Amino acid sequence: MAKKKKLSIAIQGIATSFHEVAALTYFNEPIDTIECLSFHRLCESLKNGEADYAVMAIENSIAGSILPNYFLLQEYHFSIIGELYLPIHMHLLTLPGVKLSEITTIESHPMAIRQCAEYLHALKNVEIRESDDTALSAKRVKEMKLKTTAAIANEHAAKKYGLQILEKRIETHKKNFTRFLVLTKRSHDKKESNKASLSFEVANEVGSLADALMTFKNNSINLTKIQSIPIIGKPSEYSIHIDVEWKRRKQYDDAMHQVLLQVKNLNVLGEYKKGKIEYK
Amino acid sequence: MAKKKKLSIAIQGIATSFHEVAALTYFNEPIDTIECLSFHRLCESLKNGEADYAVMAIENSIAGSILPNYFLLQEYHFSIIGELYLPIHMHLLTLPGVKLSEITTIESHPMAIRQCAEYLHALKNVEIRESDDTALSAKRVKEMKLKTTAAIANEHAAKKYGLQILEKRIETHKKNFTRFLVLTKRSHDKKESNKASLSFEVANEVGSLADALMTFKNNSINLTKIQSIPIIGKPSEYSIHIDVEWKRRKQYDDAMHQVLLQVKNLNVLGEYKKGKIEYK
Repeated sequence: MAKKKKLSIAIQGIATSFHEVAALTYFNEPIDTIECLSFHRLCESLKNGEADYAVMAIENSIAGSILPNYFLLQEYHFSIIGELYLPIHMHLLTLPGVKLSEITTIESHPMAIRQCAEYLHALKNVEIRESDDTALSAKRVKEMKLKTTAAIANEHAAKKYGLQILEKRIETHKKNFTRFLVLTKRSHDKKESNKASLSFEVANEVGSLADALMTFKNNSINLTKIQSIPIIGKPSEYSIHIDVEWKRRKQYDDAMHQVLLQVKNLNVLGEYKKGKIEYK
Repeated sequence: MAKKKKLSIAIQGIATSFHEVAALTYFNEPIDTIECLSFHRLCESLKNGEADYAVMAIENSIAGSILPNYFLLQEYHFSIIGELYLPIHMHLLTLPGVKLSEITTIESHPMAIRQCAEYLHALKNVEIRESDDTALSAKRVKEMKLKTTAAIANEHAAKKYGLQILEKRIETHKKNFTRFLVLTKRSHDKKESNKASLSFEVANEVGSLADALMTFKNNSINLTKIQSIPIIGKPSEYSIHIDVEWKRRKQYDDAMHQVLLQVKNLNVLGEYKKGKIEYK
């Protein structure tokens, strides 16, 4: 029997980054990851067929939406086929045997630094340095044998690079999670979906958005996210991005037929199964 | 007669940055600017009384909302007393006499780099480097006499640092603008306002947001911006941030009375005069 080919998944960051953890959790089978050092590179990798799927962070419970990624979604016209909410736990990693009093520099991704702000504010005489990826910082500490530098990263990075966890769970909010989208170029079977990401345009006039939302309400469709995005060169219009959830597919279909008559340029960015938020 | 004390305005970035241009345009009188290299520092400067006002970028027509600044607004409880839409034009600045073929590095703020993406993609063999501020990059080119580095910055930076404008208007979208908020600690006379920034919380259930927006619609209140922000630790609720505009104050007051009964934790972040969007 032919051996099944492993799926290629584009991730942002390197091995053991939160993107890799998200990819492994979502697919739950051995995968090949393609390490991309920017979201643009991630999209190119999916577009040119190098990757079968891409995993893209889209919002964090503390830092909010990663809006530039919404522009990438629109630009590349990928389909969202799934989502994953990953609890984000961060630790302070050092070379084995290093003490906290010896640390002069702490390095990590700016998002991670912000999520550990309270812990970092309480430290004195420590320089904070930004990097491209949490895992990359851990790798640097290991490879360059940096005795006075600590990285903020996850436990997978600690394990892979043989670093000690000097301080555990230094994130300010313990119920911190990041939402990841799973993207593909191919169309997908939509049978099992109970959630959709939509975008449409409305005029900046009394109630055009309220009417559309009322249509969803009247069909018992829940709204789980909404944001307006300005349309370049059209100051009196904007683009709306919403996520909706339903219990019965027919209600969603009915709502969509009615909304189509109320708004302009309706796009279904993806219909997929809603992810669970599980705090650990 | 006593000489009038100049207002102290906290800005993000250094002199000639887009924040300084926004501050000078809004106040339209001689001001003292307090240069802050982070938005956190900007808020501290206003909080501790160093600055009378702070000017804070809140969204860009290309890059979208600067969500972390919404968290700062909530954390510091400042009042928004005005807004300004500033057209963003960006140029490639070098030391005098330098030719494009001699440039090996281009440096600027990541937002500026993204707004000039098309121009930069077309260049070959040029390294792109990120900095904290567009004006800071221009200053570095001048002070360190960097002959093979160009900065992306505005015409004010070119003038101040004696740099030549090698390429004009390299931003991808010519109708690009950034919206700035003017903040203060003090309460303010609200007579002349026709726009407000509000936040409130709604449950993630059918229609609670639709009902609130319908109240605004029924009172002829325009919505110019909306976004949901997850509430940490409460996955089934979210915080909504909206901007509304009105023609008659009474309609706004009536709508607010009704909305108060529909939502939780309503906050008025500010009532102010709507800014004009003027493309040049």
